[in-house]
Amino acid sequence: MKSSAWLDQIGGRLADQMRFLLEADRLKGVIRLNHIADGSRRENTAEHSWHLALFAMVLSEYAIEPVDIWRVVQMLILHDLVEIEAGDTPLHLTLTDTGQAEREQAAADILFGMLPSEQGQAFRAMWDEFETAESADARFAKACDRLQPILLNHVVGGGTWNVRPDFNIEMEKSLTQRIALGSPTLWAAAETVFADAVANGWLKPAPTPAA
Amino acid sequence: MKSSAWLDQIGGRLADQMRFLLEADRLKGVIRLNHIADGSRRENTAEHSWHLALFAMVLSEYAIEPVDIWRVVQMLILHDLVEIEAGDTPLHLTLTDTGQAEREQAAADILFGMLPSEQGQAFRAMWDEFETAESADARFAKACDRLQPILLNHVVGGGTWNVRPDFNIEMEKSLTQRIALGSPTLWAAAETVFADAVANGWLKPAPTPAA
Ligand SMILES: [Ca+2]
Repeated sequence: MKSSAWLDQIGGRLADQMRFLLEADRLKGVIRLNHIADGSRRENTAEHSWHLALFAMVLSEYAIEPVDIWRVVQMLILHDLVEIEAGDTPLHLTLTDTGQAEREQAAADILFGMLPSEQGQAFRAMWDEFETAESADARFAKACDRLQPILLNHVVGGGTWNVRPDFNIEMEKSLTQRIALGSPTLWAAAETVFADAVANGWLKPAPTPAA
Repeated sequence: MKSSAWLDQIGGRLADQMRFLLEADRLKGVIRLNHIADGSRRENTAEHSWHLALFAMVLSEYAIEPVDIWRVVQMLILHDLVEIEAGDTPLHLTLTDTGQAEREQAAADILFGMLPSEQGQAFRAMWDEFETAESADARFAKACDRLQPILLNHVVGGGTWNVRPDFNIEMEKSLTQRIALGSPTLWAAAETVFADAVANGWLKPAPTPAA
């Protein structure tokens, strides 16, 4: 920030909120492993979050149980903010990652702590709810978060399905099957996408058992 | 799309909705005139829409009258989708632009027409409400849409305030003063930002009357 005199002049709650909103801008610079649909470049987490909000708005009718779609959308707008401090941990690398949960908790303390306390606590509670995924709203939000990269991988003909040479449909299903907890209909659609990707050679089939 | 066999297999409403969600991905490639906060590159409209949703969530307490913040956020997520077909028209160039409204109406017909009809009509109604800005919810959504680029211009030390050599604070105020219709508090903050920008030489002062 080249000058913060204006923030001192505004002061109080509003200045804290504006500082938070400018800090949040950094999410546009957090780059994910997957590409956008035209294949031209990798996706950043801010535009990913927008896309997920749109997924939730369009697909809410497929939730396994009634959800408060406004709460779902709030979770999706907030859920990846911690990546500003903690970085993105691609789903396909979580099999070997350690320490990410602790880094994200510390990041949430810092980021949501920039806001007026009751507002920061409300946002933090929404983020915690998404992370633990024990409510219907959070399960549907997680389903959207898992579904979107599947469609993007398919549309670019492989994408993150190629980042590990041994990666195959069984591993992909184990990473994404929680979609079914939020929406069996969307999980069935994902399985259709996987089968088409295998048929096209973009996702490896299940390994055949040794003879 | 390299293969659409999966969409034929899924079929029905859900296939139409997924086609729409993949088409919407193109918003990530619509580049705005202003830069992101670190100044490294220009902002795209998808990440801008996410940022606006966050602005609305954080700043709702400053709305001039009670708003339904969920409706505000839906408008902000949807409001720029037409740019996929019609392109971005920078606010600072609207003084000379013609035909943009017609292009955007045609784009809305195409895009929202991809969805199941009752859903497409609901989204279209939300978009129309934002465009006409006659409801309290829409006026607050517009206020967020005008405020965000002001903060980004300030933080990069000029930004779109420099795109026309004759551009000055009076012209900027005339383009953004509708913030006051949604939130006098946020308009007062914007005026503080403008004054600080003039003091730093990032925005030209009002021209002095000829002697
Ligand atoms: Ca994520």
